Amino acid sequence: MHDEQGWGCGLLVDMTSSFILRVLLLGSLLSTFPVFAQTLVERLGYPPGTKLLIVHADDLGETHSVNAAVIKALQGGTINSASLMVPCPWFPEIADYAKSHPDTDFGLHLTLTSERVYYRWGPVAPADKVPSLVDQNGYFHHDWEKGERINAKEVEIELRAQIERALAMGVRPTHLDSHQYRLIMNGKELFDTMLRVAHEYKLPVFVTRDWFADHPYLQASLGPSDIVLDHTVTMEPEIPPEKWADFYVTALKNLKPGVTEFVIHPGYDDDELRAATRERPTWGAAWRQRDYDFFTSDQFREILAQQKIKLITWRELAPAAEAR
Amino acid sequence: MHDEQGWGCGLLVDMTSSFILRVLLLGSLLSTFPVFAQTLVERLGYPPGTKLLIVHADDLGETHSVNAAVIKALQGGTINSASLMVPCPWFPEIADYAKSHPDTDFGLHLTLTSERVYYRWGPVAPADKVPSLVDQNGYFHHDWEKGERINAKEVEIELRAQIERALAMGVRPTHLDSHQYRLIMNGKELFDTMLRVAHEYKLPVFVTRDWFADHPYLQASLGPSDIVLDHTVTMEPEIPPEKWADFYVTALKNLKPGVTEFVIHPGYDDDELRAATRERPTWGAAWRQRDYDFFTSDQFREILAQQKIKLITWRELAPAAEAR
Repeated sequence: MHDEQGWGCGLLVDMTSSFILRVLLLGSLLSTFPVFAQTLVERLGYPPGTKLLIVHADDLGETHSVNAAVIKALQGGTINSASLMVPCPWFPEIADYAKSHPDTDFGLHLTLTSERVYYRWGPVAPADKVPSLVDQNGYFHHDWEKGERINAKEVEIELRAQIERALAMGVRPTHLDSHQYRLIMNGKELFDTMLRVAHEYKLPVFVTRDWFADHPYLQASLGPSDIVLDHTVTMEPEIPPEKWADFYVTALKNLKPGVTEFVIHPGYDDDELRAATRERPTWGAAWRQRDYDFFTSDQFREILAQQKIKLITWRELAPAAEAR
Repeated sequence: MHDEQGWGCGLLVDMTSSFILRVLLLGSLLSTFPVFAQTLVERLGYPPGTKLLIVHADDLGETHSVNAAVIKALQGGTINSASLMVPCPWFPEIADYAKSHPDTDFGLHLTLTSERVYYRWGPVAPADKVPSLVDQNGYFHHDWEKGERINAKEVEIELRAQIERALAMGVRPTHLDSHQYRLIMNGKELFDTMLRVAHEYKLPVFVTRDWFADHPYLQASLGPSDIVLDHTVTMEPEIPPEKWADFYVTALKNLKPGVTEFVIHPGYDDDELRAATRERPTWGAAWRQRDYDFFTSDQFREILAQQKIKLITWRELAPAAEAR
């Protein structure tokens, strides 16, 4: 975990307001009054040491199987947040649900790749406006090969198109995140693009301090009004199926104080999802069924209670950013 | 059924070659040598009176359920022809199958609408090149409302884009047809657009004489090298589920001599297809399961034998056009 001081230094890079600079200097002089050292947990009004958890399902809109499984799990209450892939063909189904369930915590899972083989999608923006994002058949690239020239201006066009379609279809997103972390892990220019668009739409972006060491540009670009989660946990491809529950149980038992987002991928292991993901087991149908099973289980519910972990959503985080 | 004479008159409209004109005049003088009165069955080398049948599945590529059901039925042999929807997300799955089964009779089901509610797709061409074809969210229109201004030039751009994507992905189509008959039933300009593109790619178009009375422009636009099927049969929405097999059995028992295409819609009544089609029963999951069940049944196979109906595909029809 990175210290608050390091984060404070990062802030200075981007700040131009002399007022804010003076306040920062004052803050460092008056170290007994640590207004800028306040953690996200404290800003949310919880005592230090509180363990807050977002249980966040990815990839809604990609398949009906994932939509159906996550809707069922959201209704059960232990999965409490999710994000939607606007370019995908089942987006209308989940947009319709979001519209009729306006209190649900739905973000947009900004999507720039079409990573499957037998089931694919392309950009929301006209393909000729985002040529660097599409392959020779007009789909998003399956992957970004080393040296793939992704044009940040085209990324911005596509992100705006995704957000505008979601808004036009009645979705009121609570946050933005990035499918396959493409906008997080691929350099400052793409991250800044996402952040600029997010600021314009007044939406928080999913970023965690866990990523700062490997990607220092994240810290450098974030401002004082941005929410930064403390930690994230996600399943690792090397975990065998029989250790699935163990992995999550261990993570929950070792959960650190602060706000953590579990990034999970529930779905039903049915014909559609098996066909859509059949070229590899990672994030495949059986994987997603295991996630569904664990996060809707009594075991999960009991560990939350036992470990005094409180569930929280992006709906509660957004006001913390505004209040800052 | 329309007589050959009427069809011959239609041909004259489009012909400019004086050679062809002279041959036509000669043909009408030498009525004892009825080269232009030859039926499609005769041109195919069968005796007059032969009943030839194409059992043609629509809508491949739209869902995995339809792909899987039709692949299974094609392998059984009683469904022997199908067409693919290029703009749909499961097109890569069926394109991959087509590539590895190059002898299968696959056409392209040219698609200009996205007729479902919870599951949708848009054009292959960049949306800003085909604005009259898309709704405010960038999908193909759900329907063409009365007065919807569909621009024929944009239709041509989109048809070419669909064919080019199919070719680029390794599909070698045997014919073209039109999803929801949009390009057949909506006036001469759209039909001529499809026909012009089809001629350019040297692909036959599914047209039947059954449609000439209601849409005389079809007959007027077709030339001597175009294949025209004699009849078509398709399920009618008013037929109740319990009369499904009866409807097809009656049609088969009353099949007229000539080439008939049965336009059918097989699929599995599974979670994906139920979700994708849930807003109405017509062409829904249960409908498609009934089609799958009948056309893979022993009953169907037995009636074919009993009625001396011979199955034929577009692969055999195309050389008949070339030879003409």
